[in-house]
Amino acid sequence: MIVIGIDPGLARVGYGVLRKGERFPAPLAFGCIETGGDRSPPERLLEIHERVSALLDEYDPAWVVLEKLFFSRNVTSAMHVSEARGVILLAAEQHGVGIAEYTPNQIKQAVTGSGRADKHQVQEMMRRLLRLDEIPRPDDAADGLAIALCHINMVR
Amino acid sequence: MIVIGIDPGLARVGYGVLRKGERFPAPLAFGCIETGGDRSPPERLLEIHERVSALLDEYDPAWVVLEKLFFSRNVTSAMHVSEARGVILLAAEQHGVGIAEYTPNQIKQAVTGSGRADKHQVQEMMRRLLRLDEIPRPDDAADGLAIALCHINMVR
Repeated sequence: MIVIGIDPGLARVGYGVLRKGERFPAPLAFGCIETGGDRSPPERLLEIHERVSALLDEYDPAWVVLEKLFFSRNVTSAMHVSEARGVILLAAEQHGVGIAEYTPNQIKQAVTGSGRADKHQVQEMMRRLLRLDEIPRPDDAADGLAIALCHINMVR
Repeated sequence: MIVIGIDPGLARVGYGVLRKGERFPAPLAFGCIETGGDRSPPERLLEIHERVSALLDEYDPAWVVLEKLFFSRNVTSAMHVSEARGVILLAAEQHGVGIAEYTPNQIKQAVTGSGRADKHQVQEMMRRLLRLDEIPRPDDAADGLAIALCHINMVR
């Protein structure tokens, strides 16, 4: 079973592709889709949709898993993240894959054992659990991997 | 020049299609895309994207104009509206049309002369300005027409 975890944003979309193995989940790919700030929001949404669709074509996952935005003090930022979420959810639905969502606390709890873990703890746990030589970079990619791993742990 | 005005939402997307005439704008179509509440948000986003894309195919507008959500007390509702905005902006960008956005106050000001006009005043002005026998129904369709008319007045 292949799972793609996605950390949505208009400027940066972190992703991690995991294959659930017999014993350990194997990272197939991870990275960050960066959309240039010199472009309009619709142009950025188009790039996000195209690049997420390309990931779905390439890896044919059973699940797309997103970080759920359940509260934000910055409404403008929340609205931009939600526009990006919209086109990512659309791409997943167009590909007919399963869709799951977890809150940031659920994701941290699942991968570190604590819902209050900081960014560095999450990155370090990703390195260990996925048997990588270094922590996954950039940060958004580590978040994408953590989101995918959270779902693999949940459906176990 | 054909302009489609869109009032975004996850449950209801109001739209109005206007042709800017020599003297008066002519309504070509208006209505409301309703997505059933028994379906998941991704299914609803897929329907919105498909039906807005179909409108763009049918009317080949020069502009898609959206109501801008610039503040909301209800963050959850704002996030759902923004997800819908994301897939509508994507459809417009995929069709290569111009995209414009106005705040609710700008739209009311443009069509009634007052940024504080109520829903009924907007509907009645739409009936008069577009020479309709009755006020456009449902309410969301009247909003779509007002958004399109606002843009026609702005670019005049």
